[in-house]
Amino acid sequence: MKKTKEKVNAAIIIIGNEILSGRTQDVNVAAISFWLNELGVKLEEVRVIPDIETSIIETINEVRKKFKYVFTTGGIGPTHDDITSQSIAKAFNLKYGYHKEAYAILEKYYGKAKFSSGRKKMAMMPIKASLILNSSSGAPGFIVDNVYSLPGVPSILKSMLGGLSSKIKGGKKILSKTISVRTIESEIAKPLANVQLKFKKVDIGSYPFFKQGKVGVSIVIRSTEQNLIFDCYKDIKDFIKKKKIETI
Amino acid sequence: MKKTKEKVNAAIIIIGNEILSGRTQDVNVAAISFWLNELGVKLEEVRVIPDIETSIIETINEVRKKFKYVFTTGGIGPTHDDITSQSIAKAFNLKYGYHKEAYAILEKYYGKAKFSSGRKKMAMMPIKASLILNSSSGAPGFIVDNVYSLPGVPSILKSMLGGLSSKIKGGKKILSKTISVRTIESEIAKPLANVQLKFKKVDIGSYPFFKQGKVGVSIVIRSTEQNLIFDCYKDIKDFIKKKKIETI
Repeated sequence: MKKTKEKVNAAIIIIGNEILSGRTQDVNVAAISFWLNELGVKLEEVRVIPDIETSIIETINEVRKKFKYVFTTGGIGPTHDDITSQSIAKAFNLKYGYHKEAYAILEKYYGKAKFSSGRKKMAMMPIKASLILNSSSGAPGFIVDNVYSLPGVPSILKSMLGGLSSKIKGGKKILSKTISVRTIESEIAKPLANVQLKFKKVDIGSYPFFKQGKVGVSIVIRSTEQNLIFDCYKDIKDFIKKKKIETI
Repeated sequence: MKKTKEKVNAAIIIIGNEILSGRTQDVNVAAISFWLNELGVKLEEVRVIPDIETSIIETINEVRKKFKYVFTTGGIGPTHDDITSQSIAKAFNLKYGYHKEAYAILEKYYGKAKFSSGRKKMAMMPIKASLILNSSSGAPGFIVDNVYSLPGVPSILKSMLGGLSSKIKGGKKILSKTISVRTIESEIAKPLANVQLKFKKVDIGSYPFFKQGKVGVSIVIRSTEQNLIFDCYKDIKDFIKKKKIETI
């Protein structure tokens, strides 16, 4: 997968032992993905990696060449295991230290008397990075080239995405339509594959579910073209009707 | 990160557009990670990739060289977007077709009359793969070399892990202890960093939380050595007491 001007795509790098250990359930992927969908950016890969400097540097340097936008989550807090900022500085071979603007923001946020060394650490990053402002808890994220570093705490991350939208140049918005039917996947596998063959520019996903003891399948049609989704939807509806399958 | 005999580590490759689009919240990482922890295997990386053959092949071939165990989830069902089995066969350059034992299992499970082409597809995989049996819904997963392919539906995946345990040769079990305190991270950043410096063979993680309007921090100590965890815990308890921070 090479980065091309045409492809408006993105990857997320989740930095955190707590996700890998199973202690914490990630919810940031879905939040970022929904936000990117709205902006017309397709999330094409996610990596979860540990709080190890070499892992962060290697992953950043590999992924930033493949995707238009890269978002990191986690590791920009005040404690010893927060090593994202220094690792990104190393990945880009940039000077790491107090970021003047971030320092001023944090000093104002906490007040001079309460601006402890732990809190000051949150102003340390590549000194020439652009900031991602954080109205909910002060400490900013930052941007270096196409890499956007966000915090790991979901509520804070979410509150920062809105302000970041203007910095993302999306492509066509990815639209979707879902049809849920009372059947099993193998019943519809063949006709669905035929529809997919006919509509090559549409992604059709088939997702079985079990809800309140009943099985079903959600068919999700995704495309940037509304008319293609409509035509594809019609074909699916047709074979579902022919097979006398109940829609939900 | 090179694969070494000493490192009993693992990676998970989640194959599925539905996770990347934000439609489905992954819960399999935590389930597999807890199971691996019990077996003494450390999960060191997760990748989420789309249902695209080249992405699957490239990722499999990169990751399987780096980690002792690789688990894939998703894409082994009956529909057109389930392409994990054929992609893994291509990654390993192995013959793809009906797996005799899998075919027999599925034919017995569904009965000859109801063994449709969609269902037969679930018996297609690298023909010399070892099977991972599935008592809850018939369709087996499979093993090729160090790559273990599991389904994406969480309840089915979970039901298959128990039977797989005997095939995993773990190392020392990773133990952990958590201390939750009523403070903010920047208050404990410095003494915690000192404890981490003292105990180099222990992973100390610091995770802020907000619960019912109150902030707190969970400090998680992880190691394979119970005595190291105990000594480290003691040091943390000491500085918490000295700082008059409330434990929760």
